[in-house]
Amino acid sequence: MSESSGKKGASRRQFLTSVAAVGAGAVAAGASRAATPDPLITEVQEWARATGDGVDASPYGLPIEYEGDVIRRNVEWLTADTISSINFTPIHALDGTITPQGCAFERHHSGAIALKKEDYRLMINGLVDQPLVFTYADLERFPRENHVYFCECAANSGMEWAGAQLNGAQFTHGMIHNMEYSGVSLRTLLEEAGLGAAGDLSDKWVYVEGADASSNGRSIPMEKALDDCLIAFKANGEALRKEHGYPVRLVVPGWEGNMWVKWLRRIEVMDGPVESREETSKYTDTLADGTSRKWTWVMDAKSVITSPSPQAPIAHGPGPLVITGLAWSGRGAITGVDVSLDGGISWQPARLAAPGQDKALTRFYLDINWDGSEMLLQSRARDESGYVQPTKAQLREVRGLNSIYHNNAIQTWWVKASGEAENVEVS
Amino acid sequence: MSESSGKKGASRRQFLTSVAAVGAGAVAAGASRAATPDPLITEVQEWARATGDGVDASPYGLPIEYEGDVIRRNVEWLTADTISSINFTPIHALDGTITPQGCAFERHHSGAIALKKEDYRLMINGLVDQPLVFTYADLERFPRENHVYFCECAANSGMEWAGAQLNGAQFTHGMIHNMEYSGVSLRTLLEEAGLGAAGDLSDKWVYVEGADASSNGRSIPMEKALDDCLIAFKANGEALRKEHGYPVRLVVPGWEGNMWVKWLRRIEVMDGPVESREETSKYTDTLADGTSRKWTWVMDAKSVITSPSPQAPIAHGPGPLVITGLAWSGRGAITGVDVSLDGGISWQPARLAAPGQDKALTRFYLDINWDGSEMLLQSRARDESGYVQPTKAQLREVRGLNSIYHNNAIQTWWVKASGEAENVEVS
Repeated sequence: MSESSGKKGASRRQFLTSVAAVGAGAVAAGASRAATPDPLITEVQEWARATGDGVDASPYGLPIEYEGDVIRRNVEWLTADTISSINFTPIHALDGTITPQGCAFERHHSGAIALKKEDYRLMINGLVDQPLVFTYADLERFPRENHVYFCECAANSGMEWAGAQLNGAQFTHGMIHNMEYSGVSLRTLLEEAGLGAAGDLSDKWVYVEGADASSNGRSIPMEKALDDCLIAFKANGEALRKEHGYPVRLVVPGWEGNMWVKWLRRIEVMDGPVESREETSKYTDTLADGTSRKWTWVMDAKSVITSPSPQAPIAHGPGPLVITGLAWSGRGAITGVDVSLDGGISWQPARLAAPGQDKALTRFYLDINWDGSEMLLQSRARDESGYVQPTKAQLREVRGLNSIYHNNAIQTWWVKASGEAENVEVS
Repeated sequence: MSESSGKKGASRRQFLTSVAAVGAGAVAAGASRAATPDPLITEVQEWARATGDGVDASPYGLPIEYEGDVIRRNVEWLTADTISSINFTPIHALDGTITPQGCAFERHHSGAIALKKEDYRLMINGLVDQPLVFTYADLERFPRENHVYFCECAANSGMEWAGAQLNGAQFTHGMIHNMEYSGVSLRTLLEEAGLGAAGDLSDKWVYVEGADASSNGRSIPMEKALDDCLIAFKANGEALRKEHGYPVRLVVPGWEGNMWVKWLRRIEVMDGPVESREETSKYTDTLADGTSRKWTWVMDAKSVITSPSPQAPIAHGPGPLVITGLAWSGRGAITGVDVSLDGGISWQPARLAAPGQDKALTRFYLDINWDGSEMLLQSRARDESGYVQPTKAQLREVRGLNSIYHNNAIQTWWVKASGEAENVEVS
């Protein structure tokens, strides 16, 4: 990219001095053209000479081949087997807030199963007036809702408890996606079965399980079950992918992804929690003294800078730089994000692309004039409950070093003068 | 689906009498089980016995094979060649408001071209202080915005002027999609080039053209160019598909899709419109007397019931039925949608899934108790400007029968007692 060679109008903002100045204006002012004429401007290109590809009727449209790098990725050494493994959303390469299903992370406990709509059944049993079994067609007859929610695996950033481990926002924070769900509220189906038999609802629970071999059973307090849980059959308008629980998954807004049971087959109303494997030996938070906290369902306020980051280095010299990232909270809407360039010594407010939405991703931007020196980039989110995202030191003070889940600490990227970035910890 | 056989709790709503009643409750009440036990409930299924597919790291995730029918479709006789043709979003099969890129309609004038980011250049010239050429990397350095907007082809529903022609919401109304765009405002780039040289801006225009062989040039009044137009490089978070103008397209919110120039290569500030092919012989509205209206850019308020519809018949008998559809307006937010079951004689307000957003799709629902008799289903949208979607008769009164573009008339589906639906006109 050549340096600007034209005389600037006095009123012009001259944001990027490196943008190429060309054409009649520059010539009229007697300025010389850029040293190396840009052949992409001065010659007629092939794509303007010939027709392109015709409209294709049938296949599902895919990203262009040049975006072949924007894909979910896994970490081979992380799990022993792919049937109980994870892959990560390429958040470093995305913008906006919606996660396309095609690159939304997956976590399976016993592999993804292929379940046809015709074979789908959902049972509601236990302390209900009338146990019921719903077909998929039955579910489509109940009043529907639409909501955008983030889904974050409890283990997102889990490797980072012990220190800076994984070099890239995709790997440190990519167990998250954000989609527009369409479905029926869980409350509607519970009321259809009737909760009179359950008596006082304040101490009741529902146990939810999937149709896959793991069943992935989880206990949910009745208060949450009757609040905002969704029996979802569409995400971003279309059917859920097989790997996301086609044809039906549970959506438990703001709570850890493990509870968003895929291939949902049964909901039992109970007088207590089941204390299943998934809520005792797994998905509990072991503290410094070896005891474990349980029922830590909510994903607290968190944020990460997606660019620049190790997989998205700065590709240009000093001057205007867009710093961007994502923020979210399981306790409601994000109300603000601060960004630090110096590892948390000083902070400045980022610009939210839109007002925070309830339990959904918020995109933030900070437009700076980069002086070309190294930075220790951090972001810090706060939510409508007043909660502020903690430092890793603050989190360790309470939780010790034994945890895997619920690491919502402030992340640091060391951006070097070269523009390359590394995952580091600051003390 | 078997009839309910259990005694109902008095408090229970009994929404679907046809949902199967099963299990301990029914047995304890002495009720007989459903006549034919459901093997999907009584037997352990293969998918609960064996592990499923492992986590796959690399490919872009695709819909499950059972959704192979939810695809864009074209109409072969509509155009002579696929390089200047159209395919349609399967709106009859989608829910919510976001359109996944994979099934978002396409319209090409000279085929879709494959343009690499490295080869991309955007020139701004004409009445600017300094003509400039931006690389893709340059564009990424300007402050970004995110907005959800619908994009509707001016010819959407065009075949319906003459009468009920195409049997399915996908074909009558599927030249529309709705995505979350990320990009730089056109105003920002125009100000970077400097508009001092243009003098009084109130009578200035910009001419925009694409890098494909058609160039698809269109003139846009400066007022709109400086209002809400976006130089977009992401849709629903990820790169635009090749067919949607990768790597950069223009977004002209609320205005006809033809102006949303793909593979955007040049923006010229001018002292008048170009009167290009795309705004004279095409994309003008021929009236009854043979004269044509031009500069009819805005897509007025419109709606359509997506289900039930010819491609989405009712698959069950009388009882609860979800009627759903989409509404939108190029003049701002949708404020309400009414639904008629009797061809426009009586109307009832539909429920909006969320408050209408500026120039974006709104999902509406009407939950009825269908008595099993035939219906003449219609929807009628109104927007924040006070505009109400017209009947086809009202539209013809003003516009005659010669038009192709800007048909925003109320659509009628004749739903028969069988649940099947047909595209019809009512007088």
